[in-house]
Amino acid sequence: MSKSQFLNHVRYTYGIVNIMTKRNPHFASLKTNYLFPEINLRKKEFLARHPDAKLISLGIGDTTEPISPSITNALMQMSARLGTKEGYVGYGPEHGMKALREKIASKYYSNRITPDEIFIADGAKCDLARLQTLFGNNISVAVQDAAYPVYVEGSIIQGVKKIVLMPCNPENNFFPDLKNLPRTDLIYFCSPNNPTGAVATRQQLEQLVAFATKNQSIIIFDSAYAHYIQDENLPKSIFEIPGAHNVAIEVGSFSKIAGFTGIRLGWTIVPKALKYEDGLSIKADWNRLNATIFNGASIISQAGGCAILEEEGDKEVKALAAFYLENTRLLKEALDGLGYEVFGGKNAPYLWVRIKGKNSWDSFQFFLEKLQLVITPGLGFGEGGEGFVRFAAFGSRENILMAIKRLVCTTIECVL
Amino acid sequence: MSKSQFLNHVRYTYGIVNIMTKRNPHFASLKTNYLFPEINLRKKEFLARHPDAKLISLGIGDTTEPISPSITNALMQMSARLGTKEGYVGYGPEHGMKALREKIASKYYSNRITPDEIFIADGAKCDLARLQTLFGNNISVAVQDAAYPVYVEGSIIQGVKKIVLMPCNPENNFFPDLKNLPRTDLIYFCSPNNPTGAVATRQQLEQLVAFATKNQSIIIFDSAYAHYIQDENLPKSIFEIPGAHNVAIEVGSFSKIAGFTGIRLGWTIVPKALKYEDGLSIKADWNRLNATIFNGASIISQAGGCAILEEEGDKEVKALAAFYLENTRLLKEALDGLGYEVFGGKNAPYLWVRIKGKNSWDSFQFFLEKLQLVITPGLGFGEGGEGFVRFAAFGSRENILMAIKRLVCTTIECVL
Repeated sequence: MSKSQFLNHVRYTYGIVNIMTKRNPHFASLKTNYLFPEINLRKKEFLARHPDAKLISLGIGDTTEPISPSITNALMQMSARLGTKEGYVGYGPEHGMKALREKIASKYYSNRITPDEIFIADGAKCDLARLQTLFGNNISVAVQDAAYPVYVEGSIIQGVKKIVLMPCNPENNFFPDLKNLPRTDLIYFCSPNNPTGAVATRQQLEQLVAFATKNQSIIIFDSAYAHYIQDENLPKSIFEIPGAHNVAIEVGSFSKIAGFTGIRLGWTIVPKALKYEDGLSIKADWNRLNATIFNGASIISQAGGCAILEEEGDKEVKALAAFYLENTRLLKEALDGLGYEVFGGKNAPYLWVRIKGKNSWDSFQFFLEKLQLVITPGLGFGEGGEGFVRFAAFGSRENILMAIKRLVCTTIECVL
Repeated sequence: MSKSQFLNHVRYTYGIVNIMTKRNPHFASLKTNYLFPEINLRKKEFLARHPDAKLISLGIGDTTEPISPSITNALMQMSARLGTKEGYVGYGPEHGMKALREKIASKYYSNRITPDEIFIADGAKCDLARLQTLFGNNISVAVQDAAYPVYVEGSIIQGVKKIVLMPCNPENNFFPDLKNLPRTDLIYFCSPNNPTGAVATRQQLEQLVAFATKNQSIIIFDSAYAHYIQDENLPKSIFEIPGAHNVAIEVGSFSKIAGFTGIRLGWTIVPKALKYEDGLSIKADWNRLNATIFNGASIISQAGGCAILEEEGDKEVKALAAFYLENTRLLKEALDGLGYEVFGGKNAPYLWVRIKGKNSWDSFQFFLEKLQLVITPGLGFGEGGEGFVRFAAFGSRENILMAIKRLVCTTIECVL
């Protein structure tokens, strides 16, 4: 019996079986933990040591306020409807409910794009991953640094080899230096930005579209926070920029607009005008991919989405955004007053704070240990985030005020 | 100005921009249309010619009966709860609601697997795609022929080059000839099978697990139709087979159990014991992948899932399965009586019917034109499906009886 035969014999007889299949090599390139589970681990470890701690989370960008009345009502109505013979529906329509796509087109895009260019999904993160599957790994990508981890990590999972970081920091006003940027196939761009809270101006987005047009690149525009923009001069969509239809895909989400983080609903826009090098339609492949490996967002969530876009729902979610932005303003005021260098927070629910003399995981630990505040270390968003931390202003007013009290007191003991 | 400069100038000035990015070559390997959208196109084309036609769909396996009362109630309650300050939750827990995972483990798996090996998802199709992302393209796969298209097409999208077809037909009793099957990294296996309705016996699954163990392959076991199994001797899960924990992943779904096709809820089990060649945990990578590119199923759908697993809900969904199986029995009786060669349909909601002398798209067109019945051409499930068609027995009793009447009359005119 050869050694390998013997090993097989042992494995088979005793059930000690490793699979002969090799690990997908892309996974070895990933850091061990995704950012937020790592933060949760550290929280748990802290709570094990301090079981009585009263943690306040300003960490993960998770909404905290209840779903507003007219939207709750729509969720309940669709749930009830599914229990009736006349109202029941099975698989939702391909691309999502027509009424929802029409309302998104008119209300959020002033019909600059058409309903058939909109694909309803279960959220921006999942659709970003499907877009990464669409383009495969024989491409190059550019990513803002710092940025939402999914752009880089999802690309690594696909096996993308060339990832160009675009530093975005206070020194360049959080807009990449396009003159010195090499051409890439995709350019991920998030505005209002998570984590920095920076919002690109119309002129900046014009430069970005011109850059993509010149280079024949595709912008993957993440507008998940667009509806926090209060300043009317700032564009909420890449499609407000002439020419963007030829070079951009936009990913949107109801998560942060309406507290749909757990309900799961978003959309992706792939314009008809967007073509591969050979003139084939990118929308057609996106359509094919969605039909093959996706079955749409929950029909209940989609009914909720329709309500968000009604007059009543729109009023409610605007009030919700105003509430979180007031949280942000209060936090910013406090941090400014304490002498921190604070960015963002005006048209976005995030504050990006430079902590001098500390690396960002040390800062994380500092806020956790001293103030029992959970924030997000900037490094979690890429090398460009080192030295920064992100404050998310989701939370009840009570918690935000308590967090501010702790910040002002500088240690938890003086507050408790 | 060089030619390329000129072209760029024209493109930029006139907005005629193709992206320089090449199409992901994997897409060129896909057939143009996914099966069901193709069927819809043919239906539409027929309806354009015959606007008054009264089509009955026995095609796509889409549920038609309303969500049962206790489950509807749970969906409504969670919807209402999200509208309250105390009840609101944002992002669901990683891996899905603990109560749901515990109930699945105990009720569906008699605790043969543990809740931490269960990952809640928005449906089997989406999780199959994520599993395909997990394993990447440097692998070989085996697939039942005929089979649910997602195994092959999802693999093609990933760029998997080696796809081995395992013929499953009346001649081999719908079980692959393992003796002559080469080793592959993954073996997709669906039982009860979609589309053939065949259910593997305990002995057959033991052979399959032994085969995977000997070859150190992974079985991706699709149990989406397990709860149609009425015969107590037939296994509902691969994990009823000793040793399967070392070599199998199972994908389950609430879609066909409880009419959740539009509500979106399923699960995947990756046992702790499952290891790559180098001993690393596959579950750990699955965990990492889910944290990075997925955000869980809708919390409302998950609440509905919990209700399915309560005593009341369990009774209701068993009644639902019995209803669809009675549809199947009636259809089978009619088709048998008409002299068709009919397979499946005893422990599955599908009938697999051999149509002599016609290819399966011709049969599709025949049933559409002559009887205004929409069925599914076997070829849509792979080469092994040629010569067959699939009847899905989802539908109201009224529609099933009308379909039978048309079948017996042999032309639509005699019925109308």
